[in-house]
Amino acid sequence: MSATTVHTFQVEGMTCQHCVKAVTEAVKAVDASAEVKVQLNSGVVQITSDQSDDALIIAIAEAGYGAGLV
Amino acid sequence: MSATTVHTFQVEGMTCQHCVKAVTEAVKAVDASAEVKVQLNSGVVQITSDQSDDALIIAIAEAGYGAGLV
Repeated sequence: MSATTVHTFQVEGMTCQHCVKAVTEAVKAVDASAEVKVQLNSGVVQITSDQSDDALIIAIAEAGYGAGLV
Repeated sequence: MSATTVHTFQVEGMTCQHCVKAVTEAVKAVDASAEVKVQLNSGVVQITSDQSDDALIIAIAEAGYGAGLV
């Protein structure tokens, strides 16, 4: 936990709206109050959360997608 | 309803395992005892069911995918 900030990731492997939902739900599982904005075409995901970059990357990875910091 | 037969469709728009699950669940919603085999890469879906081709095509279409008879 830390201050609430905007974290921007490049996420690989999202192909459809189900994937967008899976990533969003994975983030919400670690921070129910997170705001998650996903651009499916570009793979850019912006998350407003008090979780760390690492915690968010791990959550997305466990959902089956590769996330890197932008 | 009619005899249980194997129906083979070409389904467009499936991009990931979530899509496979969505199509499978759509078919199961109209025939819980259906066997559904999906080849994600080719889009070929084989369904063993007593439902008609039309009923299965409609179920898949309502899930957001285009199905045509092979």
